[in-house]
Amino acid sequence: MNAALEQADGAHLRLRRLGIDTYREFVVFMHRDCLVCRSEGFQVRSRVRVTVGDRSITATLYVVGDEILGMEEASLSEAAWIALAANAGDIARMSHPEPVASDSFLRKKIYGGTLSGPELAAIVGDIAGHAYDDIRLAAFVTACAGDRLDLAETIGLTEAMVKVGDRLNWTSAVVADKHCVGGLPGNRTTMILVPIIAAVGLCIPKTSSRAITSPAGTADAMEALTTVDLDLTAMREVVDKEGGCIVWGGSVALSPADDILIGVERPLDLDSEGQLIASVLSKKIAAGSTHVVLDLPVGPTAKIRDQAAALRLAERLRQVADHFGLVVDLVLSDGSQPVGRGIGPALEARDVLAVLGNQADAPADLRDRALTLAAHLIDLARPGMAGAGRRLAAEILASGAAEGKFLAICEAQGGLKRLATAPFRRDVTASRDGTVTAIDNRRLAKAAKLAGAPAAALAGVDFHVPLGRRVHRGEALFTLHGQTRSEIDYAAEFVAANPGIVSLSQG
Amino acid sequence: MNAALEQADGAHLRLRRLGIDTYREFVVFMHRDCLVCRSEGFQVRSRVRVTVGDRSITATLYVVGDEILGMEEASLSEAAWIALAANAGDIARMSHPEPVASDSFLRKKIYGGTLSGPELAAIVGDIAGHAYDDIRLAAFVTACAGDRLDLAETIGLTEAMVKVGDRLNWTSAVVADKHCVGGLPGNRTTMILVPIIAAVGLCIPKTSSRAITSPAGTADAMEALTTVDLDLTAMREVVDKEGGCIVWGGSVALSPADDILIGVERPLDLDSEGQLIASVLSKKIAAGSTHVVLDLPVGPTAKIRDQAAALRLAERLRQVADHFGLVVDLVLSDGSQPVGRGIGPALEARDVLAVLGNQADAPADLRDRALTLAAHLIDLARPGMAGAGRRLAAEILASGAAEGKFLAICEAQGGLKRLATAPFRRDVTASRDGTVTAIDNRRLAKAAKLAGAPAAALAGVDFHVPLGRRVHRGEALFTLHGQTRSEIDYAAEFVAANPGIVSLSQG
Repeated sequence: MNAALEQADGAHLRLRRLGIDTYREFVVFMHRDCLVCRSEGFQVRSRVRVTVGDRSITATLYVVGDEILGMEEASLSEAAWIALAANAGDIARMSHPEPVASDSFLRKKIYGGTLSGPELAAIVGDIAGHAYDDIRLAAFVTACAGDRLDLAETIGLTEAMVKVGDRLNWTSAVVADKHCVGGLPGNRTTMILVPIIAAVGLCIPKTSSRAITSPAGTADAMEALTTVDLDLTAMREVVDKEGGCIVWGGSVALSPADDILIGVERPLDLDSEGQLIASVLSKKIAAGSTHVVLDLPVGPTAKIRDQAAALRLAERLRQVADHFGLVVDLVLSDGSQPVGRGIGPALEARDVLAVLGNQADAPADLRDRALTLAAHLIDLARPGMAGAGRRLAAEILASGAAEGKFLAICEAQGGLKRLATAPFRRDVTASRDGTVTAIDNRRLAKAAKLAGAPAAALAGVDFHVPLGRRVHRGEALFTLHGQTRSEIDYAAEFVAANPGIVSLSQG
Repeated sequence: MNAALEQADGAHLRLRRLGIDTYREFVVFMHRDCLVCRSEGFQVRSRVRVTVGDRSITATLYVVGDEILGMEEASLSEAAWIALAANAGDIARMSHPEPVASDSFLRKKIYGGTLSGPELAAIVGDIAGHAYDDIRLAAFVTACAGDRLDLAETIGLTEAMVKVGDRLNWTSAVVADKHCVGGLPGNRTTMILVPIIAAVGLCIPKTSSRAITSPAGTADAMEALTTVDLDLTAMREVVDKEGGCIVWGGSVALSPADDILIGVERPLDLDSEGQLIASVLSKKIAAGSTHVVLDLPVGPTAKIRDQAAALRLAERLRQVADHFGLVVDLVLSDGSQPVGRGIGPALEARDVLAVLGNQADAPADLRDRALTLAAHLIDLARPGMAGAGRRLAAEILASGAAEGKFLAICEAQGGLKRLATAPFRRDVTASRDGTVTAIDNRRLAKAAKLAGAPAAALAGVDFHVPLGRRVHRGEALFTLHGQTRSEIDYAAEFVAANPGIVSLSQG
């Protein structure tokens, strides 16, 4: 018996890689009759501390029979395997984890209590340390839902989220940034604004998110054109060279606890005002931003339903930003209909290229929104030029300087990809003549998601009829795009069962 | 190619049993590169409908590599395999499930809305149908936590829980029952009360629960002495023969949605008033009970903290019971310290046998509590004899009739088991002389759980010093019992880190 084998008793098992991918959940697999399970009293779904050398993780136990593992073996889900940096044949020690320290704070919040800064820091620390299972994560997200976090708690959560992640520093004294508080399909202004701002000479190292509950986030749309999962060194090189970038925030670990929470909010299709603010601002603070324009689209089926809700959220955002010394400008925008035509990563990227290329048929609404936000950001970051922002932004776009900068950024991030088109397409047509009076953004987004977006980059919805457009019976209102036949069937079934996505006036 | 193999394409895969036990979670395993994943657009953690013949379940997808499954194969977690009644080699069709119909109601509750009866019925139906994953279950439990369900919602939840399960009918017009609203270690009165009531000639087909957050439920303690997972037919035979039984409620599917919710409440150590009421009363209604005594222990570290909370809960319990025509009596009892001496399945069973056997050293408090509740139940179910209950109950216990009835019930349920003692024991001693002034039930229960209870039936805490007892330095306050050395070490560490479990007065 060699040393390694001798260790495979008591609380030790030899790791074998089975390649079981559970997404981000840490799972450890052991034989149901193995000595470790018996001596430690572990049972299915026990939390188990797995230690290899000086590295440890806490995982949920699933037990298996002879079909997969021997008595002296254990395996880990892929996420756990990678986090532990394990190698096949490593001897792992299995032990009882410390109780989750922040459990009592979590329960306090569940019962409607108010959490202090240190209590929130303990919860966020445990989340970032992967000590929370899905049940705890879902409970925390639910306990904070709606308006259940007050101002002090929102500040505490923001601060805690910044602390557990990386924090970027830039040599530039002014670091410009922009964020849209979601909910509007196709609102891909970042990819137009960033090259404009960079062309002005401002520093804009933009980290964007992937979709949470929408059919595409900016990172998803940008990924249809170039690489977005750059590490910090690569990101710095792009920004040093071009003055700006558009990368996925998750690959630079700016607010890792937020990314974990988002993984639970997505299946619940859930937002919390306090968590939304902490999520947005923690990432801006961690990214080293100093001047930020926040776009708040308002509309009956947008994430922010009405003006009153928008003003309340804007006020709270400003209060929290002030606390951290972040200079913000809040822009309430029209959220009554999709922006541009495409909904889904590749379709939205196509619209962006049309605007940057000053194409005659480019979506005017997308162009206008991007210019407005760029103007606000220029005026915010260069107060000496107050009011000159709009003219400057428009000039840079019209001259082709913005397009040139965008292509240079794509090149610096790893090269420009060619946009493909989805293999399966299906028109959804008007059942009668009429004028478009309302558009249900949520159901339209859902149709795009059922068609496969954002995971299927080419999938989504191409939308043809803005508000006020006169349509005739049989005319296409929108076109479903899909990469598989079954997904497009699924989306089409949903659309057929929800005939009110586009409302038409009589006659 | 035979017919089965020909089907193993498109959306069909051949089932192979890998024996992966995920407790009650339904998981489907497929090869990450299999045709089904690609053609259907499934990804890790997608929800997948798995159909064999005319049976379907919805499961969460985990993907694997060549190490475990071939391209034409799929596997299921054991719970899913059993629910689908699958056989190795069955061809399963994989498809997109219908969206969870009650998701919008769940979100409404998360955001603080009030749910109607039909909305609650939709949620409970989806829970009982295994359409909710852990994230949804945790969100629902959290959204209902504390007092977030009003009276109408509590009635709606109770009704919905009854509807999705089995419902028992008894020939007897009066069906007696008893329930303790938890939180008091060692309060094992049911095992004494049931034989007394049955010996009186009343029908008492008792279904009990396993521990939720405590070191033992009645079903756990009873299981230390006899079989408790009887099916309905076996339960009826016992009741026909002996007039009463004590079986585990989960094996007769009285309120299956409740059992699923409890699986999520346990790791969160969470209670909700509305859910607690729905849980208790739905099981009583489903069990066919007509007259029920409810024991509400009140104490600073019991589940119900003070008299005001107890009265509020009692009032709400009575309102909901009234709605369903259930005759209830609510007994507020002393919850300031553990009952009896043992905490943990076997240790509590030992105390019960001592009381039933009229042993001189039997715990007087356990005896007295059981007699009080039995008296209330006799008076409630036989109003003509009002006031005679206490005398009658005491006579039946003293005469040995209760013990005889208990042994007969154990015999009918499958035979009496011999009680064993835990192999590992460790005394926790007084650090100085003093008088016991307070006992922290919650931490004492936690120590018993860390020692292995209730899963390890012999594990727990043997408690020696009731309130008011004078103790000397070095005297044992309680003894930890464990079935493994590592668990008893773990419990001892917790006790060492929490020196205030037993408070002593000065001098």
